[in-house]
Order: sequence, then C-alpha cells, then structure tokens
Amino acid sequence: MTTPLIAPAGLKNVIVTDTEIGDVRGEEGYFHYRGHDATRLAAEVTFEDAWHLVLFGRLPGPSDGAAFARRAGALRVLPGGVLDLLRATVGPNTEPMHALRLALAGLGLGDRPLMDVPEAERAEAALRYAAATPAILAAAHRLARGEVPLDADPDADHAADYLRMATGTTDAAAAAALQTYLVATIDHGFNASTFAGRVIASTGSDMSSCLLGALGAFLGPLHGGAPSRALAALDEIGDPANTRAWVRGKIARDEKIMGFGHAVYRTHDPRSELLKEVVTRFDSPLVRRARAVEAEIETGINELKPGRRLYANVEFYAGVLMTEVGLPPSMFTPTFGVARVVGWTANILEQVRQGKIIRPSAQYVGPENLQ
Amino acid sequence: MTTPLIAPAGLKNVIVTDTEIGDVRGEEGYFHYRGHDATRLAAEVTFEDAWHLVLFGRLPGPSDGAAFARRAGALRVLPGGVLDLLRATVGPNTEPMHALRLALAGLGLGDRPLMDVPEAERAEAALRYAAATPAILAAAHRLARGEVPLDADPDADHAADYLRMATGTTDAAAAAALQTYLVATIDHGFNASTFAGRVIASTGSDMSSCLLGALGAFLGPLHGGAPSRALAALDEIGDPANTRAWVRGKIARDEKIMGFGHAVYRTHDPRSELLKEVVTRFDSPLVRRARAVEAEIETGINELKPGRRLYANVEFYAGVLMTEVGLPPSMFTPTFGVARVVGWTANILEQVRQGKIIRPSAQYVGPENLQ
Repeated sequence: MTTPLIAPAGLKNVIVTDTEIGDVRGEEGYFHYRGHDATRLAAEVTFEDAWHLVLFGRLPGPSDGAAFARRAGALRVLPGGVLDLLRATVGPNTEPMHALRLALAGLGLGDRPLMDVPEAERAEAALRYAAATPAILAAAHRLARGEVPLDADPDADHAADYLRMATGTTDAAAAAALQTYLVATIDHGFNASTFAGRVIASTGSDMSSCLLGALGAFLGPLHGGAPSRALAALDEIGDPANTRAWVRGKIARDEKIMGFGHAVYRTHDPRSELLKEVVTRFDSPLVRRARAVEAEIETGINELKPGRRLYANVEFYAGVLMTEVGLPPSMFTPTFGVARVVGWTANILEQVRQGKIIRPSAQYVGPENLQ
Repeated sequence: MTTPLIAPAGLKNVIVTDTEIGDVRGEEGYFHYRGHDATRLAAEVTFEDAWHLVLFGRLPGPSDGAAFARRAGALRVLPGGVLDLLRATVGPNTEPMHALRLALAGLGLGDRPLMDVPEAERAEAALRYAAATPAILAAAHRLARGEVPLDADPDADHAADYLRMATGTTDAAAAAALQTYLVATIDHGFNASTFAGRVIASTGSDMSSCLLGALGAFLGPLHGGAPSRALAALDEIGDPANTRAWVRGKIARDEKIMGFGHAVYRTHDPRSELLKEVVTRFDSPLVRRARAVEAEIETGINELKPGRRLYANVEFYAGVLMTEVGLPPSMFTPTFGVARVVGWTANILEQVRQGKIIRPSAQYVGPENLQ
C-alpha cells in the first residue's frame, strides 16, 4: 500500500487537475478565458460569444455565433413544468437561489449520467441548464414579489433578456453594462464552487447533480462573492461628507472593509477596474460616492498603514453596477450566478472527459476498538 | 507566493482531512464507526442507535436512545409540501433518486447556512433530512407505480417503517435483515460522495446544498455501489447448473464479474460476510444460487489464476438481501441511500465545525495570450 500524502489544510495551493478553461494571474492582475484576456472580452464581445468560447474553446465566427445565440435563446424559454414548479413553491420569502436549486433538480428528472452519453448530448445539457438559469431566477424573483413571470424572448440577447425578465427594463445602456459584468464573471480560476462541481462530475454523474453541487458551494458564506455586502458599506457611510471619517475609522481600528481586498490579486482587481469604467458612464450620485470611498481608502491606507495595499475587489463596483441597471440587492448574487453557471458547465464537461474519479482520503483520529 | 504542490491524479491516497467518524482498514477486512466494529453493530444494534452513534459520537443509553428514536420517527413523517411536490412531479419513469434530489431541494427552501446557525440547529437539520429520506424514496417508488404513498408511522422502527412504506410488508424477519444491511452501510471511509458533501460543507453552506452534492456524486457511475448490477449476474447465469461454466468462462476471458472485488479490501469484504450470514437465514433458491456462485468463483480463481484473489463485495449479497426482503432492483440504490444519508450528514457537520474552505488549484495548460 502506498504511503498516503498529508495535504495542506483546505488543499490550499494543491493542484488537483489540469484545465484549458482559464486562469488567474494574481501578481499581474490578469485573468483569462481560453487564453483570451477576460476583461477585454467583457468590453468587446457579447455574452453569447464569450459563452461559446468558454464552453467550446474558441470564439465563434459571425455565422456560428448567430446559430449559437439562436440555440441559447430557444433554451432560455422555460419548459412549462419548471414554471409550474416555481409557481407551486415560491413564496414571498423564497430566496431566488433556493428556487434555482429546486428548478435545477426539476430539470434533472430523467437526466442521464454524463459519462454514459456522447459529447454532443453533454454539450446540449450544458447549454440547457445555463440558458434556463436567468429565466428561472427572474421568474422566482417576480413570483416572490407577487408578480407574473415574464416569458423569455428567444430572439433577444441573453444579458438584455435576463434584465428585462427580472426588472421589466429594456434600456440598452443598462443591458450593455450588465453584459460587461456578466462576461467578466463567467469564470475566475479554480474557485470552490467550480471544484465542487468537478468533484461530482468526476464520478461521471449527470449535469443536474454537478450543477447542484457547484451551486451549493456557491451558497456557502466562505465562498465569497456577495456584492450586496459591499454596497452595504456605502449605505453605512450615508452622507458623502462622512466618507473620510468613516474610512479612516475603519482603517485605524483594523476592521474589514467589505468590497476591498482579494485572496489572489496583489494589485488592482482587473474586474473592479473594468466595472468602475463601466459605471462611470452613469455619472450618478451612487457612482460618485463609490469612487470617493475608493479614493479615500487608497489615500487613508497610504497614510495610516504605509506598505499595505487594499484595492477594491469585484464585489465593490459589481454592487454599484447592478444598482445602476435596476437590480435590487436580493438579485446581486443570483445575477452573478447567471454568468458563473456557464463557467461551471464548461468545467464539468472538462472533468467528465478526464474520466477519473476524485477520491481523496481522510485520517481517522478518533477512539479505537470500543465495545 | 508558495510553490504549488501537484497532487496525484484523483487525489488518490491524499489525506485531505482528519475525521472522527469512521475508518476502513482494507488489509484487515475491518471497518468501524466511531471506534465500534461496524459489522458487529449491524448484528447487534438498531438503526437508530447506530445513527445516534455516527452523528453524535456515542451509542445512546436506553433512555436517550428511546428519545432519539421518537425524534427521528416524528421527522420521518413528510411535510405536506414535500408530498405535494412528489405528487406533482413523479411519473412512471421517474427514478426514485431523482425524486429524492427534487425533494431535498424542496426541503431546502429557506435553509440557512450551517456556519451561521448554532450546533443544535445543525444537528436538527441533519436529523430532518436523514429521517425524511426513506419516506421520500418510498413515496416516489409508489407514485411511480401509480400507488398511493403510505404515511410514515412515527412509532415504528426506522428500518421496518421504510420497508413497510416501500413494499407494504410488515414481516419482522425481513425488517430485521434490512436493518442489518442499513446499519452496515451508513458509512464506509471517505468515499467520493462523502467528499463531495464535505467540499460543499467547507464553504459553510446549508444542509440541503451539502446533501445534494453528496447525492449527486453518489449517482455517478464511477462512484460504485450498485447492488442491482451484481444481481444481474445471477440472472445471466440462469439455471444453477450453468454456474461452473459461466464462472470459468468469465475468469478465463478475464472479464469483470460484477459484485466481486473491491478497491480497498484485500481480504473478504466484512459487509459481504455479514450479509451472507443474514441472507442464509432465508434459505431460498436465490440464496443457494448466490452461495454457489461465490464458491465457484473462489474455486475457479484458485485453479485458473493462482495467487489472485477475488472476493464477493457488499453489492453481491446486498442485492440478494434486498430481493429477499421484497425490494425490487429499482430500489436497491435508493435503499443504500437511506443508510448512507446518515453518514453524509455526520461528515457534513464535522466539516462545518472545521471551519476551513476546501479550495485547491488547477494548472492551466491551454493556449496563452490570444487576441
């Protein structure tokens, strides 16, 4: 028997798999999908094109791009059974992500294990779940508010259609800003939810099972990525005139400032820089306050804790952006999910192709030989 | 930045956590729960007592054992909403495990993250989901056959009540045999489904999310543990007179014999030995055939492949046992789940208490710097 290897706690810095999907380079403040600078993609391509890239490994040309968008659009329209399921279960206090969990399980009735089906059927499952996600979340949001769900428009752009289904708005500038956010958050290295999805995929299981695992980890408070917390800091400051005192008090007391700092990036979070640029187009009081807070934090840190760095992370401007396009805080994390589900599906398919179960060991440290 | 460690493929033989729940010692043909020989427990204690042991770390005394059984019995009765959900979704082709997935997601509406609630509330969630599982699976089974689900009896034993709800039978010998099987399969070291549940638990997520992840991995063909496959071999042999020729043909052609061989045990699988003893009580044609096949395989291997060992694994006699107590093959894996969900919940609670996210890395091996 091979001597077991004791891994570092939480498998930190342990490489468990190869991937061709993307990577984060924290020192450089850079991340990419399939070799393409992700923030540049976010500024330049549609959500559908980025989706095609992440899932299939290449940006589509004009003709297959249009075909892919049509396919995704058709799958955005929810099957009646899923809507019935949501109507029967969503109440005023139902969190949209819990409704999504239920709907993914509903879509999974009859799912076949991914390892037992050909590649084309796996890709179809990946598309089906990711395309349905915005429609499910928007429907759950509206049902919880006592509103009638709006049907998907298969001919619309994915980002614009999600925004319309969730909020009713058809503002093109808002849809464009949201699309930038969504493209920028499809994937971000090997996060805990992606790993959870891949562990399940490694058994050859079905798409519903793998996505439920990824979603389950995403809902954990330690997973991170809750843009509503960052926005709460702006609310706490209240009058912009309080900004300097609030920021300096936080720094002096060494309190955590939500929306600032990142485990990987040692420089500006490239997503935050991109989203700042996007929200600045709106020139609203909220945007001005957000920029003032960010500037005060940089100045305050420099003066009070020289040598330490603290940059706005993706949560900070994400919350501002989603507010500007009309999404309420309860839809911030779900909106993140609309993008991230695409990254999960690509990772799940990659893992299934590897065909090897991820099955580590545990060390028993309890009592022995009890009667 | 620390140099990353490249782990062996599939994290094989990599220890990712300490546990006090149980362990498998493959060389010795021994496994235990909390230091107690698991097969001895299976022969001697009720499912409820073993459940208490695995979840809370000690066998209950007579008084807290009875209190625990009452608590579990009350939670076995399904909330009306879950039954409605099953009635609305289960059709003739619905797999019970897919229905369980949906019902666990339904139970999870409103679940709070485990790391945000006190230990007593976490334990309550663990009990609630594990207690409901047999009632959900039995209801799904009956609904798929067009039958009315039978209500749980909170005063009955867990194993006996599951058997009654699933099959209608109240035979005491059958219930006792099933209870032995269920106790013996609550946990078995650090399998892939347990790991999946723990990865999700490590983010601090809720019980529904963690169990959906464990269940999702359990449904993967590479996870193993499908007692119906082993029984299929007995069907394939048909007339017992064919046994010797069938077994020797398989061995000569080096074909895999389902229900034989195990990744960890290098000797008799202790679960298989126990279940053989239990089914021998029934003295039926099926049991006699199973024992004959096992004996032929041992003899045949000795003659044709000297030095190789091939022992019946848990699947082999599990399928026989479940057939003898009246469960159809479509309920073999679900019945395994009735037991294993207890192990999952204990592992999930242990992981949440550790309070550290499991978040390994991946190595990007695709193209770079594309435009």
